[in-house]
Amino acid sequence: MASPEIEALTQALARLPGLGPRSARRAVLHLLKKREAALGPLRAALEAVDERLETCATCGNVDTANPCAICADPRRDPRALCVVEEVADLWALERSRLFPGRFHVLGGRLSALEGIRPEDLAIETLVARIEAGGIDEVVLAMNATLEGQTTAHYLADRIERFPVRVTQLAHGLPVGGELDYLDEGTLAQALRARRPVS
Amino acid sequence: MASPEIEALTQALARLPGLGPRSARRAVLHLLKKREAALGPLRAALEAVDERLETCATCGNVDTANPCAICADPRRDPRALCVVEEVADLWALERSRLFPGRFHVLGGRLSALEGIRPEDLAIETLVARIEAGGIDEVVLAMNATLEGQTTAHYLADRIERFPVRVTQLAHGLPVGGELDYLDEGTLAQALRARRPVS
Repeated sequence: MASPEIEALTQALARLPGLGPRSARRAVLHLLKKREAALGPLRAALEAVDERLETCATCGNVDTANPCAICADPRRDPRALCVVEEVADLWALERSRLFPGRFHVLGGRLSALEGIRPEDLAIETLVARIEAGGIDEVVLAMNATLEGQTTAHYLADRIERFPVRVTQLAHGLPVGGELDYLDEGTLAQALRARRPVS
Repeated sequence: MASPEIEALTQALARLPGLGPRSARRAVLHLLKKREAALGPLRAALEAVDERLETCATCGNVDTANPCAICADPRRDPRALCVVEEVADLWALERSRLFPGRFHVLGGRLSALEGIRPEDLAIETLVARIEAGGIDEVVLAMNATLEGQTTAHYLADRIERFPVRVTQLAHGLPVGGELDYLDEGTLAQALRARRPVS
């Protein structure tokens, strides 16, 4: 029987995605054995995130500043707006350093199964940003899932009336993808979107 | 590119056993999305563990008191001592509520591969506890692994000269175990330790 403090920490860790009760217990034991090297840094990191981070009121990114560093950066192209489902998708695109514009985080995707409706996502603020003008292109960078694509179609309908170019990420073979191992859906999309050899 | 605070938290979580960089990133996103319900409790639980818990100087258990609740409990049988590898093993035995005595946590097991020698474990303090007298039985509750059993044999040699009964956990079929699915080592031990039907 561990002490109530240990039980509380085990339960808090067990609620993280990817950890269950057993692995949470192992993690707690690891933290207790390495108090200086593991427990201290984790505690400090959690404190810093809890105290310093806030959600950008403009785009939904999480940063120490509001507006966030991306929204506040004058070198960012204000005419290009990339819409993503989650903050993690924004991070993934930023790691590639390929998108010069700004972002808009929806905070999820439409899902009949999970009961997520348009009003549960940051769609009105997106429409307001486009309506305010100055944006030429909206890139719908949803996941290539059924729900992601449903969300993209819904958004395309909602912003159709504005004078902006609406694009979406290309679908096709991933780099290193071998035809023999790809699913039929990916193959069908790659074939449908085939391009002349340049 | 996430903020330095987020990167630090991701790295601290990724060092936990059972979490890698990708699952740590997912966990951080979960914490950021559920600040009230997940980040706050986890932070508070870590703080409580970090500030209130200490290692019992007598047995090596981790508790809010030193000596720990088990060592300080007068209802515990002082004549029976159960030696375990890790604090987690002590918790597992305490969950079963079957052992009436006290514990001694070694802090690991002898391992030539990992370079863990007798002086790296709490063996001298164990010998001193037995030497101090008042103990009738020492239960060696090591894991049924090669290293656990090597450790048990080493301990048995070390405490041979004291007037105590040295026992170890029985090895054999686990509850619900089907012969067809058990490894040969377990079957051999179960057969070797066979008992008359009572």
